[in-house]
Amino acid sequence: MPELRHDPIQKRWVIIATERGRRPSDFLVNNEKPQMSFCPFCEGNEEKTPPEVWAIRSNNSAPNTPGWEVRVVSNKFPALVIEGDLNRQGLGIYDQMNGVGAHEVVIESPEHDVDLADQSVEHLAKIFKVYRERLVDLQRDLRFRYVLIFKNYGLIAGASLSHPHTQLIATPITPRTVAIELDSAREHYAIKERCLFCDIINQELDQGCRVVSSEEGYLVGTPYASRFPFELMVTPIEHHHDFGQLSDEDLDRLAVVMKKTLLRLKQALNDPPYNFIVHTSPNLLARGRRAGHWQTIAYDYHWHIEIIPRLTKMAGFEWGTGFYINPTPPEDAARFLREIEVPVS
Amino acid sequence: MPELRHDPIQKRWVIIATERGRRPSDFLVNNEKPQMSFCPFCEGNEEKTPPEVWAIRSNNSAPNTPGWEVRVVSNKFPALVIEGDLNRQGLGIYDQMNGVGAHEVVIESPEHDVDLADQSVEHLAKIFKVYRERLVDLQRDLRFRYVLIFKNYGLIAGASLSHPHTQLIATPITPRTVAIELDSAREHYAIKERCLFCDIINQELDQGCRVVSSEEGYLVGTPYASRFPFELMVTPIEHHHDFGQLSDEDLDRLAVVMKKTLLRLKQALNDPPYNFIVHTSPNLLARGRRAGHWQTIAYDYHWHIEIIPRLTKMAGFEWGTGFYINPTPPEDAARFLREIEVPVS
Repeated sequence: MPELRHDPIQKRWVIIATERGRRPSDFLVNNEKPQMSFCPFCEGNEEKTPPEVWAIRSNNSAPNTPGWEVRVVSNKFPALVIEGDLNRQGLGIYDQMNGVGAHEVVIESPEHDVDLADQSVEHLAKIFKVYRERLVDLQRDLRFRYVLIFKNYGLIAGASLSHPHTQLIATPITPRTVAIELDSAREHYAIKERCLFCDIINQELDQGCRVVSSEEGYLVGTPYASRFPFELMVTPIEHHHDFGQLSDEDLDRLAVVMKKTLLRLKQALNDPPYNFIVHTSPNLLARGRRAGHWQTIAYDYHWHIEIIPRLTKMAGFEWGTGFYINPTPPEDAARFLREIEVPVS
Repeated sequence: MPELRHDPIQKRWVIIATERGRRPSDFLVNNEKPQMSFCPFCEGNEEKTPPEVWAIRSNNSAPNTPGWEVRVVSNKFPALVIEGDLNRQGLGIYDQMNGVGAHEVVIESPEHDVDLADQSVEHLAKIFKVYRERLVDLQRDLRFRYVLIFKNYGLIAGASLSHPHTQLIATPITPRTVAIELDSAREHYAIKERCLFCDIINQELDQGCRVVSSEEGYLVGTPYASRFPFELMVTPIEHHHDFGQLSDEDLDRLAVVMKKTLLRLKQALNDPPYNFIVHTSPNLLARGRRAGHWQTIAYDYHWHIEIIPRLTKMAGFEWGTGFYINPTPPEDAARFLREIEVPVS
């Protein structure tokens, strides 16, 4: 069972893989492994993955057989395991709990080589609807505080399999970055009775210099204090806190915007490795229950997607300090991306 | 002039290089550049660097000529610039200040190929004494809140020049990671009147399973909630908050310990790329002065060095979430390193 351990200095939880611990020799091999020839995510290899959790199958085919369009399976090497109790305990000055959670893989397409940017808008919308389904389902498990949806594209960005896929990790704690965002939004709302993100969006639309696109109800822009070159934030212009509550139409429009945005990045930066992370409100049902009452939903939060192209290696002391140096002003990055023509498909 | 920009969502400052902004095409070249044949840090090339800020010269040679043992120069491409006022201002919802600071390079040796792990203990102690000199000198500038001392070793860890060197960056803000540590230490002290780090050190020495070495007054160990495989913390066993106040003898003993520790990592992990960061108390003189009085020094802090071997690429969603998955239990990492025999030199 993996462990969740708390660092009392940094006030940060870390997942420690206690069972299949990697030895020094595991790190000596060249990281740039060649792609394996066999792909467990390709259509026809369904029996090589853990059993199907969810799938879109328009042809009435049976689970764990070919015929799917988007397929969700448990991660074969999960960071957290689904069975068990948290068993929270103190160990002297430290805190620990069992690494209970869920770790799923959304296989975005039966095709091995069609990345998100090259999917049709219709298929992209289906993928996003699967995110929503799994998010809502995992949030029903009251052990979990947060459901992370994220994608690693390319070896440098951490993708160990090249077949297009997204991951979901349900965690028994709210990740620190999300917790800070929730706090900021709550503090702002407490003083002003306005959403922090809405205020930022209004200022960005007004100034325009960091806007890449504004259409279909979504703003795509480079954050004012971007940490990384060509970092992007995709956010609904109207206030909305919860990705899990989006309508089909919301997701259809998101698909148009994400397709164009990913195509822009692909063209501008020659198909760069990237990560994206969906930031949505936490699983407050669980938090409310533990406190003995149903807590107010985080209406003051504003869901968004963060896209980080992995262009720089300057992450050395950043990890140690939380301090970033960005060599590309976000205004320049936005202008480059804005000027790229993308076909409406 | 670079800008410091504040992210109101993440409450984080970022340095934006506004002048020599990198365009998309700058990222298209292969990052794995071959090493250049000319090295500006080698002895004899002193005129190719900015003027010398400090040097150890035992032979009375003149500044900016050969004959030095350790040499400090300004960074030719500084992240922050030394001249100017901070000019703090609000820009609607955002906050901004000029990128004023210092960015220096400690050239650790005239020799191009002798890394820190292979220096003599005597020379290592000289390098650490130069860190101390520059730290104390930069802390006299009341615009600066913090002086970062860090090393990037190897291309993957962010070193753009292979000649052994360390960097110092003096910043007008305290980096977030340090600020969190200061807060944790202060909170612990406020309740218990004990140092948080001292309590951790005592528990670690008592348990032993994460101790790599304990000698010369320093504990070397893997943190309980290590984020990365073989992450290490080097800390004085006796309470001490300020690297700038260490005696020559303290640094001589640190040199013995660091040499052994870096040799252990080099042997266990085949000369891995790594970052190290010195965590020391902030420049409280500046903070006190701005508040109109001299603030109590951060006696409740405990200085230490963080060493992060760069072994994993799993930094994808970590950047977006602040959540880490560590595939090597720190107890295993400590045992591997402890069992390596290192010659006492």
